[in-house]
Amino acid sequence: MSLIENLQWRHAVKAFDPSKKVSEENIEAIIEAARLAPTSSGLQQFNVIKVSNQEIKEKLVAGALNPESMKDCSHILVFAAWDTYTAERIDKVYDFTTDERGLPRGRFSSYTDKLKELYLNQPDEVNFAHTARQTYIALGLALAQAAELKVDTCPAEGFDNTVVDEVLGLEQYGLKSVSLIYVGYADEEKDWVRNMKKVRIPRNEFVIDME
Amino acid sequence: MSLIENLQWRHAVKAFDPSKKVSEENIEAIIEAARLAPTSSGLQQFNVIKVSNQEIKEKLVAGALNPESMKDCSHILVFAAWDTYTAERIDKVYDFTTDERGLPRGRFSSYTDKLKELYLNQPDEVNFAHTARQTYIALGLALAQAAELKVDTCPAEGFDNTVVDEVLGLEQYGLKSVSLIYVGYADEEKDWVRNMKKVRIPRNEFVIDME
Repeated sequence: MSLIENLQWRHAVKAFDPSKKVSEENIEAIIEAARLAPTSSGLQQFNVIKVSNQEIKEKLVAGALNPESMKDCSHILVFAAWDTYTAERIDKVYDFTTDERGLPRGRFSSYTDKLKELYLNQPDEVNFAHTARQTYIALGLALAQAAELKVDTCPAEGFDNTVVDEVLGLEQYGLKSVSLIYVGYADEEKDWVRNMKKVRIPRNEFVIDME
Repeated sequence: MSLIENLQWRHAVKAFDPSKKVSEENIEAIIEAARLAPTSSGLQQFNVIKVSNQEIKEKLVAGALNPESMKDCSHILVFAAWDTYTAERIDKVYDFTTDERGLPRGRFSSYTDKLKELYLNQPDEVNFAHTARQTYIALGLALAQAAELKVDTCPAEGFDNTVVDEVLGLEQYGLKSVSLIYVGYADEEKDWVRNMKKVRIPRNEFVIDME
């Protein structure tokens, strides 16, 4: 099926069947789509935390808008962005890139110098606002990949970031949680939105044409 | 081809061939993927501005990091988010949704009341930070759809938002530009990144496993 058909197929599942688990192959393919996501300056300024441990899932529940999904889904994928930019983080990515391409390190230094001049002179919260935005590109592609595999998902911002950061120990990695995806298979009886029409703003209200 | 293969295929094109135009069918399919993107609470808190007019493209150049791409690409898709949340905007989306589903208006009022309580008590810039994030989901899906069609793209944040908002008259719509995509076909000689290896952080550095 095409991407558009997969996007038409998916919806934000409201209840998961706790007895149905997503295969390793499928969850890794979903993560792979996120890993391949484009990011600003190619910095991949976030990580994905893959949670299948039931005890950990239950510790994340406090403050979640959808506590049952937190417990009943097969996997939670947490998207956590760099808390700020640093010279070390920027250099690490570009050193790896030049190494992989067989280019001398520093090949892109005029560009990375500009990035450092911008980011290292901004407050951490401005930098985090930027790194957090990038995670949404990956979130969307992970949802599309799950749809391709007919795996059910629900993306969520409705959780307590402080709890999630604390339980997952994200501070030690210099990360802050932004969003997450509940991944699994729907409980078809409880998933009340399942048989409702998918609604989007009509094309002519969504697009402003300047032709 | 699968989504993952399409993501491996795409790259941020550095130069476009001004003589090659993207068909209406293809550009509309790219927009359709963006239209189908999930958004927080289903609010679709952004629009896409479809620019093919050469004079308008050239007016957007000032302050762009990649002025040649702005001029030479076939279409520019600008992602512009709601400048803030209002009760009217929230009601309009939910009224349309209930109408389309044959449900009484107000069916989701306990939910929309909570949204209003949250958003209408936050400063506009906090709301815009949230609406802006949602546009990145659609940006990523539009890039993936272009890749499925073997249409070249380059996503960009490197432009002068003030110029773009002014030239496109976005204030009248209550919108602010966030990002854009140059869409077209590469100038294969000038697109210097074309034959370089695609590099991403290895899976085991990208993922934190909690199994």
